[in-house]
Amino acid sequence: QIDGDRLWDSLMEMARIGPGIAGGNNRQTLTDADGEGRRLFQSWCDAAGLTMGVDTMGTMFARREGSDPEALPVYVGSHLDTQPTGGKYDGVLGVLGGLEVIRSLNDLGVKTRHPIVVVNWTNEEGTRFAPAMLASGVFAGIHDEAWAKERRDAGGKSFGEELKRIGWEGDEPVGQRKMKAFFELHIEQGPILEDEGIDIGVVTHGQGLYWLEVTLTGKESHTGSTPMYKRRDAGLGMARVIELVNEVAMDYQPDAVGTIGHMDVYPNSRNIIAGRTTFTIDIRSPSKETLDEMRERIEDGIDLIAEALDIDVSIDEVGHFDPVTFDAGCVKAVRDAAEALGYSHRDIVSGAGHDACWINRVAPTAMVMCPCVDGLSHNEAEEITKEWAAAGANVLMRAVVETAGI
Amino acid sequence: QIDGDRLWDSLMEMARIGPGIAGGNNRQTLTDADGEGRRLFQSWCDAAGLTMGVDTMGTMFARREGSDPEALPVYVGSHLDTQPTGGKYDGVLGVLGGLEVIRSLNDLGVKTRHPIVVVNWTNEEGTRFAPAMLASGVFAGIHDEAWAKERRDAGGKSFGEELKRIGWEGDEPVGQRKMKAFFELHIEQGPILEDEGIDIGVVTHGQGLYWLEVTLTGKESHTGSTPMYKRRDAGLGMARVIELVNEVAMDYQPDAVGTIGHMDVYPNSRNIIAGRTTFTIDIRSPSKETLDEMRERIEDGIDLIAEALDIDVSIDEVGHFDPVTFDAGCVKAVRDAAEALGYSHRDIVSGAGHDACWINRVAPTAMVMCPCVDGLSHNEAEEITKEWAAAGANVLMRAVVETAGI
Ligand SMILES: NC(=O)NCCC(=O)O
Ligand SMILES: NC(=O)NCCC(=O)O
Repeated sequence: QIDGDRLWDSLMEMARIGPGIAGGNNRQTLTDADGEGRRLFQSWCDAAGLTMGVDTMGTMFARREGSDPEALPVYVGSHLDTQPTGGKYDGVLGVLGGLEVIRSLNDLGVKTRHPIVVVNWTNEEGTRFAPAMLASGVFAGIHDEAWAKERRDAGGKSFGEELKRIGWEGDEPVGQRKMKAFFELHIEQGPILEDEGIDIGVVTHGQGLYWLEVTLTGKESHTGSTPMYKRRDAGLGMARVIELVNEVAMDYQPDAVGTIGHMDVYPNSRNIIAGRTTFTIDIRSPSKETLDEMRERIEDGIDLIAEALDIDVSIDEVGHFDPVTFDAGCVKAVRDAAEALGYSHRDIVSGAGHDACWINRVAPTAMVMCPCVDGLSHNEAEEITKEWAAAGANVLMRAVVETAGI
Repeated sequence: QIDGDRLWDSLMEMARIGPGIAGGNNRQTLTDADGEGRRLFQSWCDAAGLTMGVDTMGTMFARREGSDPEALPVYVGSHLDTQPTGGKYDGVLGVLGGLEVIRSLNDLGVKTRHPIVVVNWTNEEGTRFAPAMLASGVFAGIHDEAWAKERRDAGGKSFGEELKRIGWEGDEPVGQRKMKAFFELHIEQGPILEDEGIDIGVVTHGQGLYWLEVTLTGKESHTGSTPMYKRRDAGLGMARVIELVNEVAMDYQPDAVGTIGHMDVYPNSRNIIAGRTTFTIDIRSPSKETLDEMRERIEDGIDLIAEALDIDVSIDEVGHFDPVTFDAGCVKAVRDAAEALGYSHRDIVSGAGHDACWINRVAPTAMVMCPCVDGLSHNEAEEITKEWAAAGANVLMRAVVETAGI
């Protein structure tokens, strides 16, 4: 059994870094606060006797040796970066839960056969630099590293520059580590486990996603003196696309979601008809077929909207992953662990993307989920209980130890 | 006849201050560029022998004495501030056209009986600080000066602080000047005069306007793991309001326009359902009845939209003026001037708000309009010809001299 109080205290200590404005966190990737969070994590890893490696994407790997020097390590972890208005647990629980597994094994004096490595993947959230899960995507060979380093934030700063600036560009080449397995503990970020009163979600699949960045170009002109028939309104176009995305997602209920949460309007003046809008469509489904059908309907619909309003369109894919089926063996290890520990559990599909979704491409992978209050995440009010966190970390420990061997 | 080349050269010289990014101007009110534009205008007024007064709202009054020391001055002018992506003529033509009238009278050695005062009203555009026509509104007793000085820009800076910072807070109390008449020359900012090939618009009326700042509050949550039925999406709510405003305006064609050009989304992340949106509705009509009906339909519609999406609403009026009927005598002076000079002309309703709309409350007022290319304004590509500008300034001169007497 892990130490639930110690895990909770570490979660609360990390949450002091990059505080939000409403009780949560703003510790976006590659900000000064991210640097500070990394230093705190490193100090804890040092105290636990781990050896730190940092790769050229800034991902941190803290290793506890095993008894067999030849054996491939078992990896656990998630991410320490947050949304601009994020919670204290999204990502953090997976990293500090992994650390708690190590601390507990240290306390018990247990040495596993395979080494165990706790990972903090860089830029999981994807808000500051799209796409999400960037460093794990480079690790898994999905993205080119040079391309990843050229991703830019809204202020034009690049991932590569900012990684250097905060002092966390390591020298280890990305993606060379071989893994026996990877386990990620994460809050559900949805309502199912709490609604059903279940302790543990055994994640069998993950939804696929497209992020489509759309730019509509109309014509700036005066809101008062431009007759309705003479307008080329990129704001009205955006409104119609938002409604379209919602409609398409509703048509595939309950197996789809669709949202526009990021919108920029130019020149954004009360008395200028918007000349240009840029916004990102986020569509997801556990079915690849549904996902592709939604994308097609949306792209066709945007063309019709643009034609009717005489505005120009460009669409860029800025994020994409196919639906994921996690490794049967690792999934079973998680399910067996929950069962053995007497926790109620159910199989579940992850609604969000996770680093585990990419790592699943290069290593046997699975995820453990715990409930979160009201299914709320990507909100400063995100909340879990100490007991939920402890149950998740206990299941993680058991699955890891079973896989790493004694 | 005024000197069309000199007027054009002055327009082009002013346009060098606060250049935009596409050939127009970004000389927003109370920025450093606004300060620089004011200094250039002052230097021209000094050279023309005028006496400058500046009031505590920063409005500049440059006076040419008349032969009768008791006679009330005739005022001419407009504004030198621009939109963030504005043109070279919106406002500027009215101020520099007024200056050109003075220069021409100087050249001709003509002294009018009534003094003539050229005015540059502060913050006509209203983008940085809502509402538009702020200083002329205080002058006309519509707004309280202390309230006006507390208007804040998106960065939280107040009108009062910024006016002091750029060094243009004068010491003359606002609104004490009495006017024989006020004439404002302005580009049409709409397509009618150019489409009909007419030189001069005799402005008989101005549209009324409401600016309603709406804030919708939903709940930030994860775009991937929040099921469609659990959402409280303030972005979707905004989209529906944009469509509603468009629909309502279309219903009152051709006597109404309706637009949302300013939108802020919070937290504006690709994978967070918008928790809050703030945007400004701009509706206008020449009929007060229509305008009020539109407002009512829109406010009712917003309530229904919010109810359906389970989001909260607040609506603030941040700008308002009733439709305006200009002074019959001044309008006649403009029409007669156009006729006498042999220009084609027609009566026209101003689609935009102008300082003249407020000054009309406290003094006999009228406006002269000249065409602009493709009706385009509030766009850096706003364009007019030297001949159009000259014709407008000629009509302005004649109407002013007729009113000021020789
Ligand atoms: N888990 C999580 O919130 N990841 C961010 C990427 C996504 O939007 O799914
Ligand atoms: N003339 C002009 O563009 N004024 C700005 C106020 C308005 O939006 O009508």
